Amino acid sequence: MTTYNLALIGFGGVNRALAELIRDEPERFASLGFELRVVAITDLAFGSLVQSEGIDLAAVLAMPRGSSFEKLPGGSVVPRNEELIKNCPADIVVEATFTNPLTGEPAISHAKWALESGKHVVTTNKGPVALCGQELRSLAAANGVCFEYEGAVMSGTPVMRMAHRMLGGLELTSVQGILNGTSNYVLGRMETGLGLDQAIAEAQGLGYAEADPTADIGGSDVRLKVAILANELLGANIRPGDVDTTGIQDITIDDVTRARAEGLRWKLVGEARRADDGQVLASVRPMKLSPEHPLAGISGATNALSFTTDLLGPVTVSGPGAGRVETAYALISDIIAVDEFIKAGVSA
Amino acid sequence: MTTYNLALIGFGGVNRALAELIRDEPERFASLGFELRVVAITDLAFGSLVQSEGIDLAAVLAMPRGSSFEKLPGGSVVPRNEELIKNCPADIVVEATFTNPLTGEPAISHAKWALESGKHVVTTNKGPVALCGQELRSLAAANGVCFEYEGAVMSGTPVMRMAHRMLGGLELTSVQGILNGTSNYVLGRMETGLGLDQAIAEAQGLGYAEADPTADIGGSDVRLKVAILANELLGANIRPGDVDTTGIQDITIDDVTRARAEGLRWKLVGEARRADDGQVLASVRPMKLSPEHPLAGISGATNALSFTTDLLGPVTVSGPGAGRVETAYALISDIIAVDEFIKAGVSA
Repeated sequence: MTTYNLALIGFGGVNRALAELIRDEPERFASLGFELRVVAITDLAFGSLVQSEGIDLAAVLAMPRGSSFEKLPGGSVVPRNEELIKNCPADIVVEATFTNPLTGEPAISHAKWALESGKHVVTTNKGPVALCGQELRSLAAANGVCFEYEGAVMSGTPVMRMAHRMLGGLELTSVQGILNGTSNYVLGRMETGLGLDQAIAEAQGLGYAEADPTADIGGSDVRLKVAILANELLGANIRPGDVDTTGIQDITIDDVTRARAEGLRWKLVGEARRADDGQVLASVRPMKLSPEHPLAGISGATNALSFTTDLLGPVTVSGPGAGRVETAYALISDIIAVDEFIKAGVSA
Repeated sequence: MTTYNLALIGFGGVNRALAELIRDEPERFASLGFELRVVAITDLAFGSLVQSEGIDLAAVLAMPRGSSFEKLPGGSVVPRNEELIKNCPADIVVEATFTNPLTGEPAISHAKWALESGKHVVTTNKGPVALCGQELRSLAAANGVCFEYEGAVMSGTPVMRMAHRMLGGLELTSVQGILNGTSNYVLGRMETGLGLDQAIAEAQGLGYAEADPTADIGGSDVRLKVAILANELLGANIRPGDVDTTGIQDITIDDVTRARAEGLRWKLVGEARRADDGQVLASVRPMKLSPEHPLAGISGATNALSFTTDLLGPVTVSGPGAGRVETAYALISDIIAVDEFIKAGVSA
């Protein structure tokens, strides 16, 4: 059985969930034909750790927040990201750091260091894909490795790979999505009579919304995803700032209840579509959807993406858009893609 | 560029739509890396036609119903299915005959003749998959060819291939679907106050429902699809008759409006799920769904299939469930799979 050595960059919720699956369920990976071994971890809080023979995941997962890798063999209190990514014996770099969505850092640098040193990259960060997806794809190709990012849109729900692999021979004319669970939850609660602020507070209580919900409510989270969809699926070359963005902050209870009375539902819709002149138009805006619209029935914190194609019309995928285990699965699906790439290469 | 020779078995709506795409849009296939050439057609009405150099599709598509292949070189008035399938120079047999859903014939015989003579089979017929999918898969494997059937469930919407290829490393615990557009359309219209018979008449007027709507309304169409899902996705070995089936014929306007008042929607749901003891339970029955259910928002003639997995929870795909072009696309997606199989084999 093939063994892949992983470097976990960032040891927060998502990479911890992945480490827990590797620790607890080797049979899940064995059924896929490979074994995963973590040989390096680096994290702002814990520092860095490199152990070529494989890190004892049970031990590091049990370490309380506030402790450090310093006392372990191969450990240091300072996170040595560049040195570790370039020199550790990993085949696959798993990038899941807390990254600034405006600059894409530190994830972009992490991805570049890894690709340039011939390592495959799998990431759940939107920033690198939204801001320099094309450059990173080229860098991966030039180095004969993969750059995979299923988790950047809708966590583990396989929308990017579905579009790339399941719609062969179709012309994709547009994508429309409900790509932020918090704002969709909030709009749904407003339909039951809650005010915007009350609904946001409730979403925060349930753990859907961040302490600062601006990116969710104002549309900037969806904007990044729309830039990814426009560039990666429709071949555009736009920046997140090119996406015409309006959030739900000005939607009132009156708007929502009046729409409901007409049988319509307000949804925050991210959209990228090819216009008749070939240009790709990208937007995020609240829309009143009729019940026949494929996104109208998407309730709660669920996300959905609708692909409009020439022969099939709309095909829509709905599923989780967040969650630590759900996002860790995105990494697993990316690792499966790396495995397929490697095995196809070996057999060629 | 690779050329694949096709034999079209049945020359009704679906295979005619495929022939039109091959005639009109060679660039669609060229972008996939192959060219399609039809070398044989057989049909109850037209008879049989074999031309190794490629049939002039424009000419045969222009032939009026009631005419025959008899006068063309390589043509005969009698459909010689067995001889043609076994001996014609096709790489891929495209099975889209009108087939009895209870016996699966003549599609099952067609598929066996083709596989036994080393030809790949792509089909839109449910019968062969529901009644002897395992046997046909084994026969294909023994002969080193493919048996592909994306169109058997939800026409060209890529649900079977999604389940096989996009959910790697997940445990699939159940599938639930709205798999019959007519009955879903009828239930939706009943929500607006129409009676069952009126709604059926309207669906017939729109071309959704057959002259005899029994299979749609009584659930036997969905039953075949549930047998396919249970066997192909959950590894069961059941017959359509093992699927506990209730249609919507006894749902009244009162049931529907009372549910609507409670915020619930009646849907005809096909389901296959693995019970705690490992057994696969399969059923078709009307269910009252709450708005949070992933199938509750599926409106009109749209179909949907929801996969419940251990790490992601429900992931749902909705899209067309019928239509001649939509079903022809299922055949194209199957041919893409055959092409991938052949090219992987060649490069191995």
